Amino acid sequence: MNGIKLRWLNPISLPHYDEPMGEIIRSIVSPNTQVEVVSLDNPIKMDNLEYRYYESLVWGDIARVAYDADNCGVDAMIIGCFYDPALEDCREICQHTIVVAPCQASMQLAANLANKFSVIVGQEKWIEQMTERAHSYGFEHYLASMRSVDIAANSLQCDTQYTTKCIIKEGRKAMEEDHAEALILGCTCNFGLAEKVQDILGIPVIDPLLAAVTMAENLANLKQNFAIKPSNKWSSQAPPVAEMAKFQLDTYPAPIGNRVFF
Amino acid sequence: MNGIKLRWLNPISLPHYDEPMGEIIRSIVSPNTQVEVVSLDNPIKMDNLEYRYYESLVWGDIARVAYDADNCGVDAMIIGCFYDPALEDCREICQHTIVVAPCQASMQLAANLANKFSVIVGQEKWIEQMTERAHSYGFEHYLASMRSVDIAANSLQCDTQYTTKCIIKEGRKAMEEDHAEALILGCTCNFGLAEKVQDILGIPVIDPLLAAVTMAENLANLKQNFAIKPSNKWSSQAPPVAEMAKFQLDTYPAPIGNRVFF
Amino acid sequence: MNGIKLRWLNPISLPHYDEPMGEIIRSIVSPNTQVEVVSLDNPIKMDNLEYRYYESLVWGDIARVAYDADNCGVDAMIIGCFYDPALEDCREICQHTIVVAPCQASMQLAANLANKFSVIVGQEKWIEQMTERAHSYGFEHYLASMRSVDIAANSLQCDTQYTTKCIIKEGRKAMEEDHAEALILGCTCNFGLAEKVQDILGIPVIDPLLAAVTMAENLANLKQNFAIKPSNKWSSQAPPVAEMAKFQLDTYPAPIGNRVFF
Amino acid sequence: MNGIKLRWLNPISLPHYDEPMGEIIRSIVSPNTQVEVVSLDNPIKMDNLEYRYYESLVWGDIARVAYDADNCGVDAMIIGCFYDPALEDCREICQHTIVVAPCQASMQLAANLANKFSVIVGQEKWIEQMTERAHSYGFEHYLASMRSVDIAANSLQCDTQYTTKCIIKEGRKAMEEDHAEALILGCTCNFGLAEKVQDILGIPVIDPLLAAVTMAENLANLKQNFAIKPSNKWSSQAPPVAEMAKFQLDTYPAPIGNRVFF
Amino acid sequence: MNGIKLRWLNPISLPHYDEPMGEIIRSIVSPNTQVEVVSLDNPIKMDNLEYRYYESLVWGDIARVAYDADNCGVDAMIIGCFYDPALEDCREICQHTIVVAPCQASMQLAANLANKFSVIVGQEKWIEQMTERAHSYGFEHYLASMRSVDIAANSLQCDTQYTTKCIIKEGRKAMEEDHAEALILGCTCNFGLAEKVQDILGIPVIDPLLAAVTMAENLANLKQNFAIKPSNKWSSQAPPVAEMAKFQLDTYPAPIGNRVFF
Amino acid sequence: MNGIKLRWLNPISLPHYDEPMGEIIRSIVSPNTQVEVVSLDNPIKMDNLEYRYYESLVWGDIARVAYDADNCGVDAMIIGCFYDPALEDCREICQHTIVVAPCQASMQLAANLANKFSVIVGQEKWIEQMTERAHSYGFEHYLASMRSVDIAANSLQCDTQYTTKCIIKEGRKAMEEDHAEALILGCTCNFGLAEKVQDILGIPVIDPLLAAVTMAENLANLKQNFAIKPSNKWSSQAPPVAEMAKFQLDTYPAPIGNRVFF
Repeated sequence: MNGIKLRWLNPISLPHYDEPMGEIIRSIVSPNTQVEVVSLDNPIKMDNLEYRYYESLVWGDIARVAYDADNCGVDAMIIGCFYDPALEDCREICQHTIVVAPCQASMQLAANLANKFSVIVGQEKWIEQMTERAHSYGFEHYLASMRSVDIAANSLQCDTQYTTKCIIKEGRKAMEEDHAEALILGCTCNFGLAEKVQDILGIPVIDPLLAAVTMAENLANLKQNFAIKPSNKWSSQAPPVAEMAKFQLDTYPAPIGNRVFF
Repeated sequence: MNGIKLRWLNPISLPHYDEPMGEIIRSIVSPNTQVEVVSLDNPIKMDNLEYRYYESLVWGDIARVAYDADNCGVDAMIIGCFYDPALEDCREICQHTIVVAPCQASMQLAANLANKFSVIVGQEKWIEQMTERAHSYGFEHYLASMRSVDIAANSLQCDTQYTTKCIIKEGRKAMEEDHAEALILGCTCNFGLAEKVQDILGIPVIDPLLAAVTMAENLANLKQNFAIKPSNKWSSQAPPVAEMAKFQLDTYPAPIGNRVFF
Repeated sequence: MNGIKLRWLNPISLPHYDEPMGEIIRSIVSPNTQVEVVSLDNPIKMDNLEYRYYESLVWGDIARVAYDADNCGVDAMIIGCFYDPALEDCREICQHTIVVAPCQASMQLAANLANKFSVIVGQEKWIEQMTERAHSYGFEHYLASMRSVDIAANSLQCDTQYTTKCIIKEGRKAMEEDHAEALILGCTCNFGLAEKVQDILGIPVIDPLLAAVTMAENLANLKQNFAIKPSNKWSSQAPPVAEMAKFQLDTYPAPIGNRVFF
Repeated sequence: MNGIKLRWLNPISLPHYDEPMGEIIRSIVSPNTQVEVVSLDNPIKMDNLEYRYYESLVWGDIARVAYDADNCGVDAMIIGCFYDPALEDCREICQHTIVVAPCQASMQLAANLANKFSVIVGQEKWIEQMTERAHSYGFEHYLASMRSVDIAANSLQCDTQYTTKCIIKEGRKAMEEDHAEALILGCTCNFGLAEKVQDILGIPVIDPLLAAVTMAENLANLKQNFAIKPSNKWSSQAPPVAEMAKFQLDTYPAPIGNRVFF
Repeated sequence: MNGIKLRWLNPISLPHYDEPMGEIIRSIVSPNTQVEVVSLDNPIKMDNLEYRYYESLVWGDIARVAYDADNCGVDAMIIGCFYDPALEDCREICQHTIVVAPCQASMQLAANLANKFSVIVGQEKWIEQMTERAHSYGFEHYLASMRSVDIAANSLQCDTQYTTKCIIKEGRKAMEEDHAEALILGCTCNFGLAEKVQDILGIPVIDPLLAAVTMAENLANLKQNFAIKPSNKWSSQAPPVAEMAKFQLDTYPAPIGNRVFF
Repeated sequence: MNGIKLRWLNPISLPHYDEPMGEIIRSIVSPNTQVEVVSLDNPIKMDNLEYRYYESLVWGDIARVAYDADNCGVDAMIIGCFYDPALEDCREICQHTIVVAPCQASMQLAANLANKFSVIVGQEKWIEQMTERAHSYGFEHYLASMRSVDIAANSLQCDTQYTTKCIIKEGRKAMEEDHAEALILGCTCNFGLAEKVQDILGIPVIDPLLAAVTMAENLANLKQNFAIKPSNKWSSQAPPVAEMAKFQLDTYPAPIGNRVFF
């Protein structure tokens, strides 16, 4: 198996998650898989994407980083946010790079382990949008519930003991009251917490970073060894090269700020 | 009734639709409604949004123009594209301005006139995405079909006789084969064509510009006279003012390029 | 804008809501809109339609009043009951008059203001039927809940302070427990109560009378100025004139009892 | 087994189907089942219910005949039209009589015989409304298609050879092109035709009269021998006796015109 | 009416339910209906099917007993377990025998009596699988809830007073909290309990044995007297006779253990 | 990465696919993954599972082989049939082994590559059942169509040139007429054909064997390295050990016939 190139995109313009996430990803993937973690180069320094407005401000950047990945020989790119922002846009523009997203990957994984699962989210605010996402992927009947720990995304790693305690509390309710048979931690910032929760509750607990990275590596393998490529037909068709040139879409470099290889 | 302020946003950075659309809108609304038509200030001069990638590049701009509308006392803003891009993002950021979009407005209108309707789109490419939109609004069971005239969005106004002929041809198939009881023209660039098609086919034919503008004026009236406002709760909650200040989201002016009042 | 003709039908054979509703409608619409409020001429003097059986007894009368509206140049008729009784029947028989109904109009309005809404109904009894209605319109995924204040329809206006208090109490539960982002008052007899509830709860609260009347006026404008008409094709097709003559359906006058112009 | 009382209601005010249908019903049911066939007493002499408007004019009459059945000790009443008009209204008002309808009964029967079925209707006009009905009963995924023979309801028995030929033609298309595994004849006026079609096509062909009558007899047996009764709770609750008395709903006799016992 | 042959299959290899169920069935059906109750001949002596694994071990046996029924002139066979195990397999292999199952039959019956129903199951464990079943039959919108009495299937008849008390308790919650208008007892082992519960709660309570047996008798009548047969087309097509012979599927006798006629 | 143990089960009692499939699987997985291919030990020598009846006869065997896998330290087992027979049963009984199935794995893979896909099946007969499966997994809205090449499962490998030609023909129709953006070959016996079809049609073509095996290897890695296990809660709960012992479910060895390691 050749060296696969994975890109993890933290879709914010602050680099502080790049190192810790890169190290975890490194520990997950095969030794000869190349791991590149990037965050955005955007003058607006938002530290979270909890609001649709914030997401909208980086929507184009995410798609442009995907386009760059497609041009740079990246085998699979992961959008590092559980809202899966701009996923369809990234998939359309990429003709070679396979684009993976944590919410879809986690739910696909969970659907192999349980008949019903719940998502433990940071705040109530997220639930409507993530539920819409889950439904758009077809997981409506798998979803037992979404429950909130009432912690902001950028605080989930502040006091991981407290966060874990809250996840266990809401996770137990999801299990006992909503009949969840597995849990998904609904934010990529929950890295490193799943195993502890799983030990306590005794049902599968899915870390979206882990689910997305292994899904991406698997798909990248399929791409490199079995000619699997993303579709470029109908709604998956990328814009014509000539039109993109006419619009000078390549004038500016991809909005990549921090970039670390692992 | 006081003067209502409407903003129509052409979410591209070319101004050539601003004048003709503004004039039509002027002819639709009440004399004392103020009409402002704006297009984007974006270095990328795309003349269409037929690809998700193109949309992604203006996603943030659309939301920022909505945020500006909310701060400038605009009563209702219309996103001038039948994909309804960034609609949920705009609605979240606006606490005062009511945001209206042509696809949703057209289907709501059609649902008052017929039990089944079809959408006549420009290209096959659009169908999957618009169908998703229609389903997300709940119109799955109203939708008889989507049919394409195979004309690019920015060519729909080039030879309106030809465009009309094609719409009539596909519209007749939608009526006869798919049992559509009404038609929606699935692009705001189809302005001025609906009445002719309706005369020939004998079923309601909805111009999305007309549907969106009158819906917006109606909602703006409700806002001004009956205290109706968009929700700001749960998934509709806008980001906290303090956080937005911390992120300096107001550093740059709204990306409005051309601006014309009618 | 020419004078538009609106007809509001109170589908009961008692006239006591005609005056107060007419006055409110008058205060909502444009000065040169003509407002006609009618109630039924039916020997059975039911004062509510809380049961399907009661509805069935006026089903034909409602459709006949719609047919009369179609023949009398009424631009838009509103069925004044939140169950939207006989709506499809009225739409089929009308080839000119646009028929509007409070439940559909309220939900369309709410879908422009919020991603999730609840309906506050009078009695538990109503919930299954109204939920069916909401689903038939496609609003299944918008519906956070239906909650009852346990007050009969014909008592909602008896002690409006008490009614308002109950609506606030159940509305708060809908907001806090069911995550409603907006409320709809699920009975046309709730007129005049929405604004107070909205002030207290801080989310949009929709008065179905207001929603239906402004929707009707908007559609009537579209009809008069932009040739928009209801469909008369397939399931929307009215019976043939000759057959209706053969059946002597015009033998009896429309069952209009009280009639007031505002 | 005691004598069960069945009432078949032809919901039109012409008696000409009463005799032939009564004879067929007689031949279907157990010898000690009492069969009463009634049609309406309504000054309007419509010979079909192909339009929603026509249905609306007898909606109340149907419910009143059901109420009468409930008061007269009828064990089960069948609404003799495949649109199942006023079914929910009849079920609400009846506390003893079980109300059965041909469309629901036929689809329940078909769901025991095949995984996919099609309905052969008289005219295209019917399809949207019957599809809605099928969906409301939950048969969306069983429905392979609806296909029309282009014959009006009141002509189906005029030239039964021709009608049968058309049903076979469209039924074969439903089988070959839509993959129907069974057929339902979508009008009670198709009585006597199913067996011939079944012989030719080799898949189950369901006569709605037969399906409804045997379902009704079965339910009536359950009622008489095993205390099964229709629900009278929540949405199934009938109006209070006192209120009905106050409204003098019993002033007029049930609108039964022709009445024949078999 | 000729003698109809019904077979009730207890899909376990213990005979202890055969006698009591046979006697009840005898008391339900017409005197000249022949009742055969069989249980399996399987070396594994499981006394319940509460786990999918247990079901899987008798899946083939159930289908083989159905195939035997088809060859032995049985008019209708009932699979005596509320999970309706192997129902689609049995229906496919049977070209003459109509196969009926308690869950589907009970829900069809309930849908004639109420707009919403709940199922009272033995254990939480069952709920996901039975809910899937209900959805596959199309009863998603009828289902108010499933509630568990926390009694294993094979204990339901141990202390019927206790079981009844628990059913009443959970049934009342289903009625009051989930707005069920009727109840279904979700296990064939609940025989003999429904009427008592119905008397106390005042809403219809359906015994699945009763529902299935009367449905089967009704369908068998239709088969014998009106040529109704199960479909043998497309997904309902049975394997070719020649292929079955080639595979020597008839080498072994049907796995019928105990067999009693009533 | 330690050596992972995968088991591929050919759920028929003929061994002829074991060698060729094993070799392909060997070429797909990592060198230190252990591959075991087994087929059944069943006196009935069916060479296909195209009928539900045939499936039913091996249903229990499949579950027993899964139970054996769970006891033998197999990390992931794949059910080698695109109907995914007994999948839920296998998942329930396994507390350690992760069970993967080709239809679910292929659709999950396709959902990462395209917004719409079609399945090319062997025979029309399969479509209803596979469509049900797709819907149960939530892929209803991804499914563009199912199209048949009219070749029996056990003939797909007889003349692979002919099979490929047929797949290309139907695949092109799926792409052009049904707007499929990717294809899935709907039978594990199609191994080795996907790449050729993909080269000709230019859209992703998924070989279910490849999709299932790589999914299984990925999940097995997650199990071995990150403690991911299948759920054993609620509907995923396995039968109690004591009860299984009481029923002597371990009396007979797992019905494994041929067994080859690769």
